Amino acid sequence: MTDNQVFIFDTTLRDGEQVPGCKLNMDQKVEIARQLERLGVDIIEAGFPVSSPGDFKAVQAVCQAVTDPVVCGLSRAVENDIKVAGEALRFAKRGRIHTGIGTSDSHIRYKLRSDQATILERAVAAVKYARTFVEDVEFYAEDAGRTDNEFLARVLEAVIKAGATVLNIPDTTGYCMPEEYGAKIRYLRENVTGIHKAVLSTHCHNDLGLATANSIAGVLNGARQIECTINGIGERAGNTSLEETVMILRQRPDLGLDTRINTKLIYETSRMVSDRMGMPVQPNKAIVGANAFAHSSGIHQDGVIKRRDTYEIINPLDVGVDHSKIVLTARSGRAAIAYRSKNIGYNLTKDELDLVYARFLEVADAKKEVEDGDLNTIILATTTRTAPAV
Amino acid sequence: MTDNQVFIFDTTLRDGEQVPGCKLNMDQKVEIARQLERLGVDIIEAGFPVSSPGDFKAVQAVCQAVTDPVVCGLSRAVENDIKVAGEALRFAKRGRIHTGIGTSDSHIRYKLRSDQATILERAVAAVKYARTFVEDVEFYAEDAGRTDNEFLARVLEAVIKAGATVLNIPDTTGYCMPEEYGAKIRYLRENVTGIHKAVLSTHCHNDLGLATANSIAGVLNGARQIECTINGIGERAGNTSLEETVMILRQRPDLGLDTRINTKLIYETSRMVSDRMGMPVQPNKAIVGANAFAHSSGIHQDGVIKRRDTYEIINPLDVGVDHSKIVLTARSGRAAIAYRSKNIGYNLTKDELDLVYARFLEVADAKKEVEDGDLNTIILATTTRTAPAV
Repeated sequence: MTDNQVFIFDTTLRDGEQVPGCKLNMDQKVEIARQLERLGVDIIEAGFPVSSPGDFKAVQAVCQAVTDPVVCGLSRAVENDIKVAGEALRFAKRGRIHTGIGTSDSHIRYKLRSDQATILERAVAAVKYARTFVEDVEFYAEDAGRTDNEFLARVLEAVIKAGATVLNIPDTTGYCMPEEYGAKIRYLRENVTGIHKAVLSTHCHNDLGLATANSIAGVLNGARQIECTINGIGERAGNTSLEETVMILRQRPDLGLDTRINTKLIYETSRMVSDRMGMPVQPNKAIVGANAFAHSSGIHQDGVIKRRDTYEIINPLDVGVDHSKIVLTARSGRAAIAYRSKNIGYNLTKDELDLVYARFLEVADAKKEVEDGDLNTIILATTTRTAPAV
Repeated sequence: MTDNQVFIFDTTLRDGEQVPGCKLNMDQKVEIARQLERLGVDIIEAGFPVSSPGDFKAVQAVCQAVTDPVVCGLSRAVENDIKVAGEALRFAKRGRIHTGIGTSDSHIRYKLRSDQATILERAVAAVKYARTFVEDVEFYAEDAGRTDNEFLARVLEAVIKAGATVLNIPDTTGYCMPEEYGAKIRYLRENVTGIHKAVLSTHCHNDLGLATANSIAGVLNGARQIECTINGIGERAGNTSLEETVMILRQRPDLGLDTRINTKLIYETSRMVSDRMGMPVQPNKAIVGANAFAHSSGIHQDGVIKRRDTYEIINPLDVGVDHSKIVLTARSGRAAIAYRSKNIGYNLTKDELDLVYARFLEVADAKKEVEDGDLNTIILATTTRTAPAV
């Protein structure tokens, strides 16, 4: 690891898979795990072994299917959870147990019906026990986003002493603003004794649409692992999107951070996860949506045709998408008509373009999208052209 | 307007409608405009009148259909665009012309093939001409996100003198980081002479998943208008989501800013726009996705059943969603089984719950989601219960 490397911890198979309708069978989990390995993910969270016999077996199968990434299994700070996770990870080349407990007042009081001193003891005991199975133990402080920083720092100091190698600071409810989450990470870097012995990790939820921004604020303030999922799936509004955070760091070298991800495999991975989980990606999803590189307004089309980067900061090829799309609608302009006409074999003169454009607008006002076939018909009807030789 | 009010400028009918496949007919535009008025939107950008005869008529119809919101029409800094926009807005109670031009080096050099001095002249001339039609003129500095701050400030000073009332600072390509975009707005507040005479506006695109964070950074640094769309639709990866920014300001009173939006109408507005535009909303979309308030993991379900706010920061009722969902999957735990069993008429004992839970996990491992009917079958098969009286 270099100082500017951010580890990508993919939890598509755990936080993503627990979503209503997204359950995978073992073969599908293995197939996606292999794809994540090709993509260059550093850690695969493969499941929550104690949750069901099927998931236990799936985590075992993932351990046997991949070589390069660390394979991680989730557990609560409960002895049996940790034991079962340890068993499921037995065949991993490099296994990690992820264990933890709620640290916010809301979680301690209402969910766990406990108190800070007891929580601290349970956290330490869980990490110590997990270390009897694996050398790599990640601790999560659930609802850290709403946890008082001073108590959080005390818990982290204690679990580092107990042997935790990674410290996950989840904004479980998606509550934090980016500055606030960044400041929390900075506070922990500056105030937790022994922090240099562990990697700080972000785990953000998207309830207010801020998961990506919070994760980036986290790494800019000293975290070096991002927990994320393909297509941003996960509980409720989902997790941080792998594709968004990875492309931000790749597109903005001035931030001084990067990942090992082979971005050219992002689009095919997105398609695979969407298909196997039956979880659609909306057309306007950043990076991987069907329209992410489509241009339909005349102003934008004119710009992109002259030079791609007037309206596109990412080259679609860099994420495995073939090409930008110039789509013809009633908001398109002459530049797009000329461009698409040329694509289908007509080099229109200015006068011809005027005629075609006027008729095009009538058709487009009545239709959502004008296809090449429609354009061909318009050209034949409004000019003296004949169909071009194919 | 109070100092802490942020105006919501909805561009669903303009930036949203120009998306491939999203074209609306005139009746649909009017229907959505009326819904936006009920929602409490301050400004409706109704279209780009010069783009097609159909859109011209639709903008006219929106002007006649709504009373409360300002109705805005887009134009380039081109005389005919502005004239046609002025004509389309003639029947508006309060009309606004939105005009502007690219100010970044990339746009000036490659798209406009011009130079800074000429751009500045064209900007001033456009605003002056627009003011001959309406008193409310918004100027956009296209690709402001990549425009040098010093030149941007000079352009804004000049257009304020020419009569611009609102200054739109678009991050056209979705390039900015939140801190950077916030700093740009702050720079303009501090360095543009006469800035107090105009309202600064954010217009962010979501290419890197940062549109919401950037808009919030903008208003925290002095902008007082957010340009956004329902469901975040718009060119490529879309615009800032109205529902996300509005709910951030509503949920975080500590930020000291708010909007006039009646949030209880958010969900029905989202459904209407998705339906009329044929534009699906992914299940994990923040606020308005089908899973935004669904809980499926055992850990989360246990927490939410004990107390909603352990895992939910927004009350679903506040955005017009009936209730949180407790969904049964292989990741569910005993608490959720007991809860859902009780809902269908069985108050299971601890021993019964153990029997039901073991069988439930077998069923759930083979099935994506366990419905009430399945649960009923499991209870009848594993306990001595008979079906409850309905």
